[in-house]
Amino acid sequence: MNTYYTQENHGPYKLINIGRLELEEGGVLEECTLAVATHGQLNAARDNAILVPTWYSGTSKIMEQIYIGPEHALNPDRYFIIVVNQIGSGLSLSPSNAPAEIAGPKFPRVRIGDDVQAQHRLITQHFGIERLALVLGGSMGAQQTYEWAVRYPDMVERAAPIAGTARNTEHDFMFAETLIDAIVTDPAFRDGNYTDSAEVAAGLRRHAKLWTVMGWSTDFFRVGRHKVLGFDNMESFVDQFMTGYFAPMDPNNLLCMIWKWQRGDVSRHTGGNLAQALGRIKAKTFVMPISHDMFFPPNDCLAEQTRIANSEFRPLNSIDGHLALFGTDANCIAELDTNLRQLLDAQAGA
Amino acid sequence: MNTYYTQENHGPYKLINIGRLELEEGGVLEECTLAVATHGQLNAARDNAILVPTWYSGTSKIMEQIYIGPEHALNPDRYFIIVVNQIGSGLSLSPSNAPAEIAGPKFPRVRIGDDVQAQHRLITQHFGIERLALVLGGSMGAQQTYEWAVRYPDMVERAAPIAGTARNTEHDFMFAETLIDAIVTDPAFRDGNYTDSAEVAAGLRRHAKLWTVMGWSTDFFRVGRHKVLGFDNMESFVDQFMTGYFAPMDPNNLLCMIWKWQRGDVSRHTGGNLAQALGRIKAKTFVMPISHDMFFPPNDCLAEQTRIANSEFRPLNSIDGHLALFGTDANCIAELDTNLRQLLDAQAGA
Repeated sequence: MNTYYTQENHGPYKLINIGRLELEEGGVLEECTLAVATHGQLNAARDNAILVPTWYSGTSKIMEQIYIGPEHALNPDRYFIIVVNQIGSGLSLSPSNAPAEIAGPKFPRVRIGDDVQAQHRLITQHFGIERLALVLGGSMGAQQTYEWAVRYPDMVERAAPIAGTARNTEHDFMFAETLIDAIVTDPAFRDGNYTDSAEVAAGLRRHAKLWTVMGWSTDFFRVGRHKVLGFDNMESFVDQFMTGYFAPMDPNNLLCMIWKWQRGDVSRHTGGNLAQALGRIKAKTFVMPISHDMFFPPNDCLAEQTRIANSEFRPLNSIDGHLALFGTDANCIAELDTNLRQLLDAQAGA
Repeated sequence: MNTYYTQENHGPYKLINIGRLELEEGGVLEECTLAVATHGQLNAARDNAILVPTWYSGTSKIMEQIYIGPEHALNPDRYFIIVVNQIGSGLSLSPSNAPAEIAGPKFPRVRIGDDVQAQHRLITQHFGIERLALVLGGSMGAQQTYEWAVRYPDMVERAAPIAGTARNTEHDFMFAETLIDAIVTDPAFRDGNYTDSAEVAAGLRRHAKLWTVMGWSTDFFRVGRHKVLGFDNMESFVDQFMTGYFAPMDPNNLLCMIWKWQRGDVSRHTGGNLAQALGRIKAKTFVMPISHDMFFPPNDCLAEQTRIANSEFRPLNSIDGHLALFGTDANCIAELDTNLRQLLDAQAGA
């Protein structure tokens, strides 16, 4: 049993069973439980709800710690903020906590669209919310944000995809593939039939090295940001911070999320026509890549933003690259807050 | 026996034995043979020699095919161009062709400085050349170029490090580490005791995927440059081009070169003081990173260029990134030629 995915480490969150979920790839989750953290109160008009889906390896906890609070745009005094941990995250239904028949490597393939479908049921049926003032998320959270805005254009008033794309690129797919390789080539992985994440430590460490190379940026290391973050050298940064971060996570959970991440693609709704899919978006949308992101880079995000009618390109500046999402660069978070406040004050698109 | 490293594939080149080479790490190469390709003639004044060391996985062949000719700055009608394959390249003394006592995984650790020492002996003793009009190379060839300019400042009149650094960065070291991981984790690698490269195909394929992610650029894939190069999709690009390129190479050779690449560092001559090492350079130097290089990026090169007295920063523009070195972007090669002509016409620094 993995002891990482607990209320102590990631709570408080509530487990909400949204019932049977038929998956796009053909599988079924009979009892789809979502781990949901909320902040603030739904107002009487039911129009102050903000939905925040989570990213790869992240949970509702980091959203709470870095992005939500009275000092942030995501202010619980004004908004009802719903953070939904993605399927496979280890908190919501995942390989690591699923019933035996779909546990571990038997967990079915899940797509971004399945998450959004599950979240839609949560939002409408559990919370009785018809419209979302804002959907936002980083990385895989951005993929889910785009999926929401394309799939339910009339429900999403505003959208803020951060450091992510609507259709994953071939380059990003390949980067994610190297992450898979790093894990599954560990003999201890045994096709997903390990008994404890610790057995797959070598694979998880290789996976952490790849994140070290691609997650930050060359400028980050050149100016010694890893040392500013408290590590004497690259070795300790990789061993303690990067490997330490991923080591307790469940490999099958990570693989479930990577597979999903690789295939994020709103053009599945329009026969592969991305422009047409993005054309469906009604939300006022701020597209916010991070300047030094090595796998969801600004240019890939810009190419999509120009196809969204009511949108603005608002890149965030940080040499911390993609993992500025961790909140390591306070200026970047401040920029994000400024953008989000402007977005929340802007007229709803839908 | 590996049949890739042959005159048919990489020649013509000559094998020149420069004798016993004591290595910086303590090992010895009793009979250090260098594979050397020359173009043009040494003039009577012996002042028209250009030295070109090779990069990781590349040989003298690609220099001949892409960079050398009457239409290029490296014009054999004017210059005596000496292309020296690096130790470990598979043509010069390497794990794949070494005598039994140092063959394969028993090959000693070699540093960039050892290559330059071997080349120095070749240039001075074999060719009887006292001064080099130009030393240039890409990637690990740039590392050797810097080593030449720092170690023998009075011999190098001009230097053109392309897409490479004088001291390898921590980020680049880690990228190279993931390449090592990809190969050595293949069970068939057997600590270097395989009998044929083909046995290590899975590891070499993973290594090729990493090169796909880091070798080109996100813009390269976004605009479909891989399709322009003749591949229908990412899968065939990876399977045929990238995997096909690396598959016949000897894993121990690659690992010999990677280890060397990771530790390229001219500041070894000055107790770790990089500015002091770069301060020794007398060569008129054009520092030429490639705009979209993901692991020898322009900013890392710029940080070094500003410490070289008689130098200019001349970045080359190509969304092909590091592997524009392959010659896939004709405009980039044309830019390089323009820069090299200007450099060759400029007054010698040393």
